[in-house]
Amino acid sequence: MNNKVLDISPVTFENDQMQILDQTLLPNEMKYLTIDTKEAAFEAIHKLRVRGAPAIGIAAAYGTYISIRDFNTNEFDCFFEEFQKVKKYLASSRPTAVNLFWALERMEACILKVKNSSIQEIKKAMLTEAHLIKAEDELVCKSIGENALTLLKPGMGILTHCNAGTIATSKYGTALSAIYLGYERGYNFKVFADETRPLLQGARLTAWELHTAGIDVTLICDNMAASVMKSGLINAIVVGCDRVAKNGDTANKIGTLGLGILAKEYNIPLYVHAPISTIDLETKNGEDIEIELRSGEEIYKMWFKENMAPEGVATFNPAFDVTDHKFITAIITENGICYPPYEKTLTEIVKGKSNE
Amino acid sequence: MNNKVLDISPVTFENDQMQILDQTLLPNEMKYLTIDTKEAAFEAIHKLRVRGAPAIGIAAAYGTYISIRDFNTNEFDCFFEEFQKVKKYLASSRPTAVNLFWALERMEACILKVKNSSIQEIKKAMLTEAHLIKAEDELVCKSIGENALTLLKPGMGILTHCNAGTIATSKYGTALSAIYLGYERGYNFKVFADETRPLLQGARLTAWELHTAGIDVTLICDNMAASVMKSGLINAIVVGCDRVAKNGDTANKIGTLGLGILAKEYNIPLYVHAPISTIDLETKNGEDIEIELRSGEEIYKMWFKENMAPEGVATFNPAFDVTDHKFITAIITENGICYPPYEKTLTEIVKGKSNE
Repeated sequence: MNNKVLDISPVTFENDQMQILDQTLLPNEMKYLTIDTKEAAFEAIHKLRVRGAPAIGIAAAYGTYISIRDFNTNEFDCFFEEFQKVKKYLASSRPTAVNLFWALERMEACILKVKNSSIQEIKKAMLTEAHLIKAEDELVCKSIGENALTLLKPGMGILTHCNAGTIATSKYGTALSAIYLGYERGYNFKVFADETRPLLQGARLTAWELHTAGIDVTLICDNMAASVMKSGLINAIVVGCDRVAKNGDTANKIGTLGLGILAKEYNIPLYVHAPISTIDLETKNGEDIEIELRSGEEIYKMWFKENMAPEGVATFNPAFDVTDHKFITAIITENGICYPPYEKTLTEIVKGKSNE
Repeated sequence: MNNKVLDISPVTFENDQMQILDQTLLPNEMKYLTIDTKEAAFEAIHKLRVRGAPAIGIAAAYGTYISIRDFNTNEFDCFFEEFQKVKKYLASSRPTAVNLFWALERMEACILKVKNSSIQEIKKAMLTEAHLIKAEDELVCKSIGENALTLLKPGMGILTHCNAGTIATSKYGTALSAIYLGYERGYNFKVFADETRPLLQGARLTAWELHTAGIDVTLICDNMAASVMKSGLINAIVVGCDRVAKNGDTANKIGTLGLGILAKEYNIPLYVHAPISTIDLETKNGEDIEIELRSGEEIYKMWFKENMAPEGVATFNPAFDVTDHKFITAIITENGICYPPYEKTLTEIVKGKSNE
């Protein structure tokens, strides 16, 4: 029984101190930064020292508390005005991060709920709310993992893509949750991690966190996935997701669609690990999901000693792709496992009917 | 009519001088090195300044001439002994390069054929033989391109993987030959180049040579291929090959198998461009092809500013994969196009019966 996994958390709060694991230094250095000002919280989110939607939300929640705990006033209006400034400031740290806004709104709602208490009590409630956001996320991840684990067997070869692990969440991760829970129970999974170009989250983060936790992980380039599947080394593919449409079409890190097609060819199940919050019944299908296109420099410049493509060459750099639901074996949430037909099962699970 | 493509050749021989395009400097610098000693020839091959099986063979052929042209003797035995030393020396520059040995053997056969001539005449014959090796390779590439071009239409989107282009051969390349020939005739192909991890031949070499030639090329990461195909941007996939088995199973750069599976899903033809010399009727099928496993440092260290994975993490780095013949639409040789059943058509084409 090895629980080294418990030592890695992207955001901790102990002895009235927020600490953030500086993910920009990974995999070469594991360093926690003490975050004790709003500027430091902003900088940590803005510079991707903390990343992964749930982890960003948690950092932002603690960030509001950190930013305002030493603000001296007995007047609620004055306190709330200061909070609004902090909220606006932190919201601008990553303008497109939905979990960031969600966490900030939730902190505001918390304050308003106890507005008649003393400022000291309000501050205390804020810290409790931040702790709650973190704890709830951990519970979601753990529940996803428990559900996913029912589909896996000891000794299985498992392929994953990008990083939906411990350091993207409060703990356990989404895609990696079953791997950690299984590991804690002595399952000897053999994990394969796609490096995940262009930003190399698989190499820098997934391989790092699994290796650090003592889990058997083998790093491959994305284009080696077919070869590994053909060799019979993979029994399941687990991925996270950014958004799941009503029909089960799933947006996730670029490369996931290709894995889905390969999985179908080799009869390997593809499991999408999806917190209920990522299921969007308003989005009918994958065609309605807009895909962010990013700078070509990520492909040929940012990590490298020198340019890896001729200056001026055209690039196409979509950050995500949409995996058609027909390639997805199951969508695993904290409340149960959804199987096709997804339109029915996803709707039921979002509306509170557990599928298990 | 733009023939800028004609300006890029990996090995040239003019005014009694061999020049080699230093491919290790690409894509950042286009520099030809004058090679005038056997040590320089050895170094250029050994350090991958010249790479691509046909180009290595050509460099080795000229290399023997360069190495021995100033050797002073009137005695054939003495001359031949010196040639043997040169041959052995150059053969050790890349111990596993089949075309290297083939070219050196061919130079030896050439010498033996004219052994009764004067040493001066023998040297002249050697240079002529090297020219011939280069010219023949160009003809093979051009013929493959002409045959391949019959399957393509102006305006098509074409995806390619790795580098089987001009700078891997005497001219035109194998996979890229139809693209160059089409370009010379005003076909406005839209080419997509996989970057081809881990060694990035697609980014560093293919994107560079097509961009330099003025051809419309867009660089993508390997894991974006599915997305590009799904978007309808790809009408054909063209790749080279390292070995084709009797049943059509084809070993090529890692990642080709995945492209084959994606191509099948999206009903896109996959064309393998194969000189007859790469068809190996002695190899029954892909299972008989041994795959070279290379160092994991290629994946997480060699190009990067710092380590991109934790020190000590396991890696799996096969240099090639085998694409099952069922994913290959046609195998295009200099003597014609082979369609399934490959066992029949490949055997016929190797034994001299043209399929066209």
